[in-house]
Order: sequence, then structure tokens, then C-alpha cells
Amino acid sequence: MRIDHTHDPALVSWVESANGHTDFPIQNLPLCIFSTDGAERRAGVAIGDFLLDLGAVSDLLGDAWVAELAQPVLNGFLALGAGARVMLRHALSRLLSDETARDAIEPALIGQSEAVMHLPCLVGDYTDFYVGIHHATNVGKQFRPANPLLPNYKYVPIGYHGRASSVRVSGEPVHRPSGQRKPPEAEVPVFGASRRLDYELELGIWVGPGNRLGEPIAIDEAEQHVAGYCLLNDWSARDLQAWEYQPLGPFLAKNFLTSVSPFVVTPEALAPFMTAAFARPNGDPAPLDYLAGGSERPGLGIRVEASMTTARMRDAGIAPHRLSSGIAADAMYWTAEQIVTHHACNGCNLQPGDLIGTGTLSTASADGLGSLLEISQGGKMPIVLPSGEQRSFLEEGDELVFTGRASADGYVGIGLGECRGLVVG
Amino acid sequence: MRIDHTHDPALVSWVESANGHTDFPIQNLPLCIFSTDGAERRAGVAIGDFLLDLGAVSDLLGDAWVAELAQPVLNGFLALGAGARVMLRHALSRLLSDETARDAIEPALIGQSEAVMHLPCLVGDYTDFYVGIHHATNVGKQFRPANPLLPNYKYVPIGYHGRASSVRVSGEPVHRPSGQRKPPEAEVPVFGASRRLDYELELGIWVGPGNRLGEPIAIDEAEQHVAGYCLLNDWSARDLQAWEYQPLGPFLAKNFLTSVSPFVVTPEALAPFMTAAFARPNGDPAPLDYLAGGSERPGLGIRVEASMTTARMRDAGIAPHRLSSGIAADAMYWTAEQIVTHHACNGCNLQPGDLIGTGTLSTASADGLGSLLEISQGGKMPIVLPSGEQRSFLEEGDELVFTGRASADGYVGIGLGECRGLVVG
Repeated sequence: MRIDHTHDPALVSWVESANGHTDFPIQNLPLCIFSTDGAERRAGVAIGDFLLDLGAVSDLLGDAWVAELAQPVLNGFLALGAGARVMLRHALSRLLSDETARDAIEPALIGQSEAVMHLPCLVGDYTDFYVGIHHATNVGKQFRPANPLLPNYKYVPIGYHGRASSVRVSGEPVHRPSGQRKPPEAEVPVFGASRRLDYELELGIWVGPGNRLGEPIAIDEAEQHVAGYCLLNDWSARDLQAWEYQPLGPFLAKNFLTSVSPFVVTPEALAPFMTAAFARPNGDPAPLDYLAGGSERPGLGIRVEASMTTARMRDAGIAPHRLSSGIAADAMYWTAEQIVTHHACNGCNLQPGDLIGTGTLSTASADGLGSLLEISQGGKMPIVLPSGEQRSFLEEGDELVFTGRASADGYVGIGLGECRGLVVG
Repeated sequence: MRIDHTHDPALVSWVESANGHTDFPIQNLPLCIFSTDGAERRAGVAIGDFLLDLGAVSDLLGDAWVAELAQPVLNGFLALGAGARVMLRHALSRLLSDETARDAIEPALIGQSEAVMHLPCLVGDYTDFYVGIHHATNVGKQFRPANPLLPNYKYVPIGYHGRASSVRVSGEPVHRPSGQRKPPEAEVPVFGASRRLDYELELGIWVGPGNRLGEPIAIDEAEQHVAGYCLLNDWSARDLQAWEYQPLGPFLAKNFLTSVSPFVVTPEALAPFMTAAFARPNGDPAPLDYLAGGSERPGLGIRVEASMTTARMRDAGIAPHRLSSGIAADAMYWTAEQIVTHHACNGCNLQPGDLIGTGTLSTASADGLGSLLEISQGGKMPIVLPSGEQRSFLEEGDELVFTGRASADGYVGIGLGECRGLVVG
């Protein structure tokens, strides 16, 4: 990933709202799928408070690859890889900064408040990883006090398959799932609504070209298969999870809903914010050869935050309560490149539009814990909200909002949009 | 599921090969997707040694639902549920038995040997269960000698999400996966080709209409969402599995390939062969209320068999060696209905064309073990083949074939076709 003129901090757009503090300055240009007035779904790019309808300006954009932007999902475009993404980025950077292009482009701008956002891709497979080492340690202490971090953790980027059908875009209401749980004192499990509904703060990776079945992806090529990033909420029912997860892993505790932010923030947009740092302490085992290498700055310098309101807080006009804030790279023991290479090292085929979660991004700091399970220490230490309400886990009317923001000296910061969900019971 | 005139043992077809011993008598009529000469994929029905091209006879079949049979996958047809399946079955039963229909139908028959079979559905999600209690016990002894069957097993139909992208139809070559394994005596894991490649003998369930996100499926309605059955090989790399599977379950040990037989054998065809029996011993805990009920004969009276040849056996003309044979219902602790209801009890949405594996179908008998891991006792007791070769796990050139057959007094037996895979290294 190169840093080029599209990152120039002096670059401004004739879309005024793109030039102040916004998630979507002209240096970002994330892709999305949206609709208006119940009409068909279309590809767009966020700029300031607007979405640019890419289909409406396709004759100004480029050549063959533009056809993929006429689809109701981005799978086909992401399949084209970095080449098409870079051409689109350069074209949009020019058109949205060049005042002489304004007359041609402006009619294709739609206010974000008028648009309904959709999943950017048809998710073929969704995989969730577990690369947040502080999260793995914190959770491991609760499920397995004797050995929180299992012996494989520092060698294997642990992941498991999730449910593709229940991946939804930000805003999907959260229905409290029912299932089996076994109260500690009970002899047999009971069936009913989960009492330990939780969130997990993650980043999502949208897969680009992918690989054929049987053909692994070398670590030096992994970067080519990452088409972009989003925020991801891996909603979790902790009581169902504790009872069901052995020996084959989480299932109904997770697959009732996974929410993602609607924008595909590209590796090109994130180039200035990648870091060499990640959460692998000196002295830890070196990655095995197949996971060693890749780009020199594979760390995601994105600050991810979770905040919440309760119904009472919203009624009283109380601002959202920040639950956590931390840099993704400080939480991740494995990089996105290592995730991709590991996933495909046995020949498993990744496909354009597949979604991969990083796992919960908790930092080593007490204010960087990415789930209530960790913040409330399994329910033992409820948090106290500005309204005076307490929470160990989520209750009806609670609304979670995730945000993500990348910034670096000398560059215009960019945002990931938001991933929102209201617990409706 | 009713037994009706389509099961009449006196019913014969003018397709002569359907009337002897065949998997596909007129009492079966399983659906499939096939192509010939590289042309487009079409829906078909197996009858004797032939496939009937459904698109070519659509004007003789029915009304609105026929349009779904013009698609290159069966998802849309399976979404219609039992009503359309029964209408199709009745129409085909009549047309293929009525000599006066022969002239109109016969030109639409294609020899199975001329057809290329494809996956019957676009698999949105693939879930694998673990309902074979003897398998769970046998494997548990090897991975966890102290507690082979975990406390949740008799309450929770254990399942986990598998990989949809690597589900392939019978015949797909099996490439030995690479991955991490940790030799018992080693301090650190190594990366390389699996040395413990194995198969798992399962049945697959094709999902019919399914449910909306947030809307569970009651046990009394579960039957409506089962559109058909197939054979399924959950290829497994045991050494990768042992090292990676904690705490989130199997991942790369499984997702390099899952093979299925090409025919969707419908619940209607299987009606005479369903049994009240399944592998839940008297005295075991009763299912929780949400899993109690359903049809009176939910047990799958299908004999499933695994056999293998080595390259040397094939060269020498030695017949396949039968590895196991057993009745599915004798292996299954949970029924297909309980699987469906449990999967959706938290509101997880099942979709038409989703694939659900039962888990390995091992019976209590030594000749009914559904994997080499069990047959060879984790490699300690290699099998000796008729060629004199020994096997603890699979080697290059080995070919596995699964078959399935349902039979009952007074009925014409039906088969599931075969699920085949050759290990090519």
C-alpha cells in the first residue's frame, strides 16, 4: 500500500461537509451499498454528509471495472482487487476535488440521512478469529481459570466459522436469544431467554479476490486479498456460550446476529495509519515460517470505541457512556495478513465478499476492554452509568454504538462510520 | 409425511433400469442438478440409470412452481416446501409409470454416465452437528480420556458452523491439507502436510423453507423445513484438529473440503423407512420441552456404508473393502427435527439450500464405526486391507465411497447414490 497524492492533507473537496471533522473526508472514500425510497440497491461512496451514487457517474469513472459497480452488492468489485480500487480512488479523488467537475457530479450526491444502508456484500462465509490476546486472556480466566491462554494461542491464529445468514448491517434490532443455560447450582439446564447478553467490539475484514480451493495464500500475498475493513459487533449470549461451547466451540451463543458498519474502508485509505506495532511481546515464540513476513506495517492503527445509552439516558438527554477505547493494533496478536494466510493455509478457499472478524479488540488497559464480560468481570463488577443505572450485561432498551477512527500526524484522519444496535428484547 | 400410492411396491416404470435393484426406482425420484457437454446446469430427477431433464418436460409437470426448476440450483424449489415437492413427485410418478407418456418423456432422459453432477444448491451456510453419540464417545475417549462425553451432550444437540465455500459434490479430489500439528514429544508445533487424514461418514440435511431471523422453529414444525437428505463426507485432518480445536472448535482440520452425494432424497421418498427408534437409551434425561415432540417416526432408517480401495487394490481388481455399515437411526442421539429446532431456537435464520451435517454416524457395533480415527483407535490398531496393505489413516491413491440405502418389508428399497473422493495428495 502506497501513500500517494490522494492522502495529501491539503486536498479538499467541493463537498463542504467533507472538509471539517468527519469520518468521510476526501482522503477516505469508503464504498457502500445503499438505497433510497425503497428503490433498488446501488453502490456508493461516502463523502462528508453525502453518498455519491456511483452508477450515476459511471461514465466519468473508468472503463471495464465500472460494470461491477452497477451490481446491488460489491462482491464483484472487491473480486477485482487493488487495481480497480486504486483506479476508482484516484478518479473519485480528482472528481470530488476538482471544482470544474462539480456540475456533473453534484446531482449524483444523496444525503446520508435520506439513504438506507445495506450489507455491502453477499456474505458467502463469515469467519470469526480470536486474535485479541488480552481478550482471550480475560475471557479464558473466566471460563478456564487454571489455563486462560491455551498452549496453541501463540502459534495458531485461532478462528472458527460463524453464521453468514445472520450478518446484518448496522441498525438491525437485537432480539434477545433464547437457549439452554445451566445455572451453577442447578443439576440440569433450563431453556429460556439469555440473561447475559453481551457485545464484542471487533473489526471486520472484507475479502477481495480470494483463492481457489487447494491453493494457499502466501503471507507475502495476503495483503492483496484484504479489500477493506468495517466495525463488527459479535453479539454474544454468555450463559448459552458457557453451557454449549465444549467441545466444538460457540454456536447459538453467537449466530443469532452479527452487525457490521456499512462502509468498506479500503486498505488504500488506511495506508498512512498502518503501524509496525502489534500486541506480540518480545520474547514470545516467533511465528512459524508460513506466518512470518508480509508487509512491514501490518498493524491496524485504528482507534475503536464502544459506547452505550439506555432508554432512560436517551429520555433524559444524557450523552452516550463510553465503554472502551483502544487502538486495534495494540489488541491484535496476529495481523490481518496472518489471519488470511492461516485461513487459507490448508487450501480452504476464501471468496470475494467473505467476512472475517478479528475477534474482540481489548487492549491491556482497563479502559480498553471490548465486552461487558470483561468490563464487569463476568457480572461481578457491574458498571454504573451516568443515569445511575447499573449494568453487568445488556438490558432491553440499551443501544450500543461502535466507532472507529484512524489518525496520524501530518494526515487527515478518517473514520469507519458506526455500527449500532438497539436491544429490543 | 404420508405413505401413499407413489410408494406402491407394484408400481413400475417404463424406464426398465428403474425396476431392478437400483438406488433410483420410481419410488425414489430424488432431485439433482446436472449438465452435459459443458452446457448449462439444469434440474433433474434420477430414475434408474437415467436423469430426467425437468426443464425439458416442464409443460407436463405443473404450474407456477415449475419455474423454480428452471434455475441452475434447487434453492428456489426447496424454498417452496413439501407442497411443491409432493406435486412434483406425484406428477413424475404418473408420467414415468404411464406407458402412454413415454413418447413425450423419453427424449428428456439422459444417461447418468453422460452427465456431470453438480451441487444441488448454492450452500448459504453449512453447519455440522455431532449427534452420533457412539462417535462422540469414541472420539472423546481419545481427545479427553477422563470425560469422553461432556455434561452438555445429552441436553444440547451439539453443532458448529462449517465452511460453505468448500462444500463440493461427490468426485471432488481430496488434496491433503497442510497445517500446524504438534507432535506429542515436540516442544513447539510444526507446519506441513497432515499425517492423519481421515473421513467421517455422515448424512446431510438440505434445508427447505427456513425461518426469518428472530423467529424460532417449533419442534412440531421442524419437519417442514427438511427438504431432503444426502450422504456427506466431513474430511478431517486429525493432527491439525487435535492442536487447533481448543477453545473454539475445529476449523482448518475440516474446512479444506466437505463432499456430498449429488441427489436430494426427499422426506416423501423416505416416508416408509422412518423409524421410532433412535440412539437415546432408556433412563437418559428427557429432552427439554422445546426439543420434545415432533413426528412419531423421526428416526432415519437408512443404512449408511463406507468402503475404500487403494490404488494397488484397484490395479489388482480387488473389490472395495467395507469399512463400516450401520443404520443412521441407531447412531443418532438427536433427530433431524431436533437438529433443526435447536439450530433456530435462538432465532438464527435457516435458509433454503443450507446444508446441515448430522455428525459421524457410528453405531455401537465394531463394524459400524464411521471414521478411521475410531476404527484404528487413533492409529494404534491399523486395519489390514485385502491387498495386505495397512491403514491407520488415508494415503494418496485411497478412494472412499459412501452409499446409503433404505429398505423395509413390503416396500421397494431406495438408495442415496454415492459420495466418492480420491485422495490425490
